Amino acid sequence: MTIPTPLTGVVPPVCTPLTPAREVDVPSLIRLVDHLVEGGVHGLFVLGSSSEAAYLTDAHRRLVVSTVVSHVGGQLPVLAGAIDMTTPRVLDHVEYAAAAGADAVVVTAPFYTRTHPAEIARHFRVLAARSPLPVFAYDLPMSVHTKLSSELVLELAADGVLAGLKDSSGDLAGFRSVVMGARSHPGITGFSVLTGSELVVDSALALGADGAVPGLANVDPEGYVRLYRLCREGDWGRARAEQERLCALFGMVGVGDPARMGGSSAGLGAFKAGLYLRGIIDCPVTAEPQVALSEGEVERVGKYLAAAGLL
Amino acid sequence: MTIPTPLTGVVPPVCTPLTPAREVDVPSLIRLVDHLVEGGVHGLFVLGSSSEAAYLTDAHRRLVVSTVVSHVGGQLPVLAGAIDMTTPRVLDHVEYAAAAGADAVVVTAPFYTRTHPAEIARHFRVLAARSPLPVFAYDLPMSVHTKLSSELVLELAADGVLAGLKDSSGDLAGFRSVVMGARSHPGITGFSVLTGSELVVDSALALGADGAVPGLANVDPEGYVRLYRLCREGDWGRARAEQERLCALFGMVGVGDPARMGGSSAGLGAFKAGLYLRGIIDCPVTAEPQVALSEGEVERVGKYLAAAGLL
Amino acid sequence: MTIPTPLTGVVPPVCTPLTPAREVDVPSLIRLVDHLVEGGVHGLFVLGSSSEAAYLTDAHRRLVVSTVVSHVGGQLPVLAGAIDMTTPRVLDHVEYAAAAGADAVVVTAPFYTRTHPAEIARHFRVLAARSPLPVFAYDLPMSVHTKLSSELVLELAADGVLAGLKDSSGDLAGFRSVVMGARSHPGITGFSVLTGSELVVDSALALGADGAVPGLANVDPEGYVRLYRLCREGDWGRARAEQERLCALFGMVGVGDPARMGGSSAGLGAFKAGLYLRGIIDCPVTAEPQVALSEGEVERVGKYLAAAGLL
Amino acid sequence: MTIPTPLTGVVPPVCTPLTPAREVDVPSLIRLVDHLVEGGVHGLFVLGSSSEAAYLTDAHRRLVVSTVVSHVGGQLPVLAGAIDMTTPRVLDHVEYAAAAGADAVVVTAPFYTRTHPAEIARHFRVLAARSPLPVFAYDLPMSVHTKLSSELVLELAADGVLAGLKDSSGDLAGFRSVVMGARSHPGITGFSVLTGSELVVDSALALGADGAVPGLANVDPEGYVRLYRLCREGDWGRARAEQERLCALFGMVGVGDPARMGGSSAGLGAFKAGLYLRGIIDCPVTAEPQVALSEGEVERVGKYLAAAGLL
Repeated sequence: MTIPTPLTGVVPPVCTPLTPAREVDVPSLIRLVDHLVEGGVHGLFVLGSSSEAAYLTDAHRRLVVSTVVSHVGGQLPVLAGAIDMTTPRVLDHVEYAAAAGADAVVVTAPFYTRTHPAEIARHFRVLAARSPLPVFAYDLPMSVHTKLSSELVLELAADGVLAGLKDSSGDLAGFRSVVMGARSHPGITGFSVLTGSELVVDSALALGADGAVPGLANVDPEGYVRLYRLCREGDWGRARAEQERLCALFGMVGVGDPARMGGSSAGLGAFKAGLYLRGIIDCPVTAEPQVALSEGEVERVGKYLAAAGLL
Repeated sequence: MTIPTPLTGVVPPVCTPLTPAREVDVPSLIRLVDHLVEGGVHGLFVLGSSSEAAYLTDAHRRLVVSTVVSHVGGQLPVLAGAIDMTTPRVLDHVEYAAAAGADAVVVTAPFYTRTHPAEIARHFRVLAARSPLPVFAYDLPMSVHTKLSSELVLELAADGVLAGLKDSSGDLAGFRSVVMGARSHPGITGFSVLTGSELVVDSALALGADGAVPGLANVDPEGYVRLYRLCREGDWGRARAEQERLCALFGMVGVGDPARMGGSSAGLGAFKAGLYLRGIIDCPVTAEPQVALSEGEVERVGKYLAAAGLL
Repeated sequence: MTIPTPLTGVVPPVCTPLTPAREVDVPSLIRLVDHLVEGGVHGLFVLGSSSEAAYLTDAHRRLVVSTVVSHVGGQLPVLAGAIDMTTPRVLDHVEYAAAAGADAVVVTAPFYTRTHPAEIARHFRVLAARSPLPVFAYDLPMSVHTKLSSELVLELAADGVLAGLKDSSGDLAGFRSVVMGARSHPGITGFSVLTGSELVVDSALALGADGAVPGLANVDPEGYVRLYRLCREGDWGRARAEQERLCALFGMVGVGDPARMGGSSAGLGAFKAGLYLRGIIDCPVTAEPQVALSEGEVERVGKYLAAAGLL
Repeated sequence: MTIPTPLTGVVPPVCTPLTPAREVDVPSLIRLVDHLVEGGVHGLFVLGSSSEAAYLTDAHRRLVVSTVVSHVGGQLPVLAGAIDMTTPRVLDHVEYAAAAGADAVVVTAPFYTRTHPAEIARHFRVLAARSPLPVFAYDLPMSVHTKLSSELVLELAADGVLAGLKDSSGDLAGFRSVVMGARSHPGITGFSVLTGSELVVDSALALGADGAVPGLANVDPEGYVRLYRLCREGDWGRARAEQERLCALFGMVGVGDPARMGGSSAGLGAFKAGLYLRGIIDCPVTAEPQVALSEGEVERVGKYLAAAGLL
């Protein structure tokens, strides 16, 4: 399929279920995709940070994108992360995503290297020139350690280099300037501005975002779809209540003991524990070297699910 | 060959010459290796940061390690970087490095992810358990955005997880505590403590380092070999003079205009320009999306070479 | 007066006009206060970051707070920043603010020192115990280099240590968790949650903020008061339009050339240029060692004013 | 007295003993100064980071500098920190330091504000123009969050703005470039280059530093004076052994539990516990809001003293 311009709605970053031996659990992945599609989501984003892309080998990544694309069979657009350090390495990931039939790729600025705004621009320009798929920029300063400026994003949008932005920076003011710039710039049409936040989706939609890519939508896709619909209907009071229910549910990412594990282990561990407790995936294990939630911590995830009416 | 325990001396991180089309330039790479070997270096480190490992595809990386290992044919130990975000991805790089015949791998802490000291320890423990090659830790906080503590390095050394440390943190006090700890700990033998600095090699050797991995040794291997020998002989006055000559030469990394390019472009661009001007490699190009030095900047690299007696 | 619990509405951080000799320009300061009061604001915050508190000597600070408090004469609550590195130094500032008759003090976590969450908590607890005035926490990680967690803020609110929060962190999701926590916690009443953002005031109010402390309200108090009223009336469409007008006006902080000056010089320079061009203050000079806007840059500030209908 | 150009030798940053009520303990301060002078140090630095300057009120600071200057009575040069956020506030501290008779002031780049290299240069230029005392730059990126570049330091040295540098950045390579530049630049004479490190004083002196400002010299001034003498005599083997003894002693800063306190509490707490256990000061208390070492932790400080032959 061709990706809508702009892409709108709820586009969950799909978790990658693993077996106890830490291979991709294909049946669980397919059940998870079905759960999301039945939940009413408007697109899927595989191989993003919530998918543990940083922890998946290339073989795992290929298997994930081909499994999901062929399973959804064009019902929904599928975006694929192409997460790597620099242009040449990203292009290798773009190649198999395109071969698998993904509808767009999602790419960060260079990381690990000491980079520069001019090099970030060049990175996206070279990618766009060589990629058979539309390129979305992925702004994730917590991982990448540089922030994409709204000026750069808008310049690249106006030049047809970027098809959209997935903004996980947490900086709603900067996000707003992309939204406003994309609307007012005569040379920009069909550019998708998506928030990666779980917690201020209502705010982002209220100020003009096209959609959201919330990791927590793995656990509660219906909730985010309902939230999206309420926002589109302008029912801000009920939207806020739904968003607050989801904020409370998001508390699950705090059950992992920070003295014992990092933020990825706690956050992805909680999402996977939630999917496991809801019966969607067979095993809540996360990839090496992440630390597993304890039994007690998994139980506490269950309490968050129960409080949100999901068990 | 088996890697010496400890590994001592000058072990340059070998630059990766590229063709104008940005493929690995194998004949230039071989000439560069010959230049280093003839310069008297004690080992080679391929696929590190100075090798533009972050910019090389897996195919490029495989070609580099197999080319260099087969060309040196066991005359010198060859260490190979296995630079990637997490344990599973690093293990894929370890596999081909081992197959190519490298003598050890060099690995950073996880990056891009939100990690934790417990996860960093687990990362190295899992790697050591599965790697057929000895594992050196690579401390490069500028790229990795976490610092390896000396406590963790020494704990992993005592447990036989790590065979050595390449410290490019710039923190000589922390480096010293690894040196002192490795010497005094009864459970640690043969552990290699190597500095990644170009500018304080004499200081590092004076306080007990086993060796150095200076990027600038690509351009002037004889200089670093001479410096190493003077330090080993305790001729600190002449060592300092040699080190200061090399510090002045290192000024070449500042010719690239910081308004126009990042630190990797400027630093690696200068090293490659130096190799090109000295007639060792055919083309000074760096990988995408790095910005090239201008003609005038390359000329200024030439002046640094001339001042150091290298042209 | 006693400060309202909670404090609501628009509470501008009042700029500090200076003479060409960089003394406090008292007549201009009084005109600025009148301009704000006539603009309908609901409180005043002196000696914050937008007031150049970091650049004012203690004598300047004393003069500012006593001038403003005595001029407003209890019509409006006046909050005073007590910006310094640690508890003992902050207490000295609290003392003169209280003596001058301010209604509350606004205090950051310790900075310059290497601190710890337990020490930050202790800092606020000691301050609250010794301060005759209610204490607001000021979350400004860009300056302070630590972020106040919502857990800590809520704990201190529940214990009666903090009377409110001024959140200039840019992290709306964290801000929301304070708003939600303050509302749901049985032990918290009258706690004020204020956003320091200029650009997402509508979003902050929509999710439950009590008010806003926008630096740009110096230049356009009527705009922010109108925005506040529209939000309170639930007229989100017109609120968004007003907010977007203010976002466009805020573009003035980008006229200062980043190759020539830092963010404080550019931002505070633009606000003061705006006040000068609107005829409210006599001189747009900023404190040492800030760099002044050029004539051309000041002209461009004028264009922003004109576009926003303020000239 | 006039400060030597350059200032050489060991110049301890003098701790500030406090009473249980956290007032300056003048008799203990005088005993500490006597202990240092008798230990053979070559100068004193009051109101630096190790002096808890960030925690001292202006009244405390004035008392410290006047007490120490009048007690040493010109036997030794006394440098005084003038630690504050910006130029105008620093100038107030310079004024009383000069009035008390200090021989030089030590000043960081602006902090808390969003600054710029051009503003940092302007800061030092304005200070030098208005200060009756010579100005030393204090490079402490851990506190100030910007690094002074060696280019800027050398430019300001050549223009007579700076009299010296106290480098606590931990970046020995950058330090070396100041040392080399100060020696080779025809316009620079008498400029003092001092390291703030405790752990690589031998390295710094070997590469040409004029002296050292080690916090640990409060506890063991004789050790650092001996180290300095050995380095000046070129007896590098015994110098290294002495430095290693001091490195082991420095381990005391790690006894404070990092789960319970920050780095300042642990480091300054250990130094003060050491001074207390050695009978030099009456009370080991640190300023608010720092967390005190536990009894067990103080005991462990004693073990470090004993191991170093200091009890």
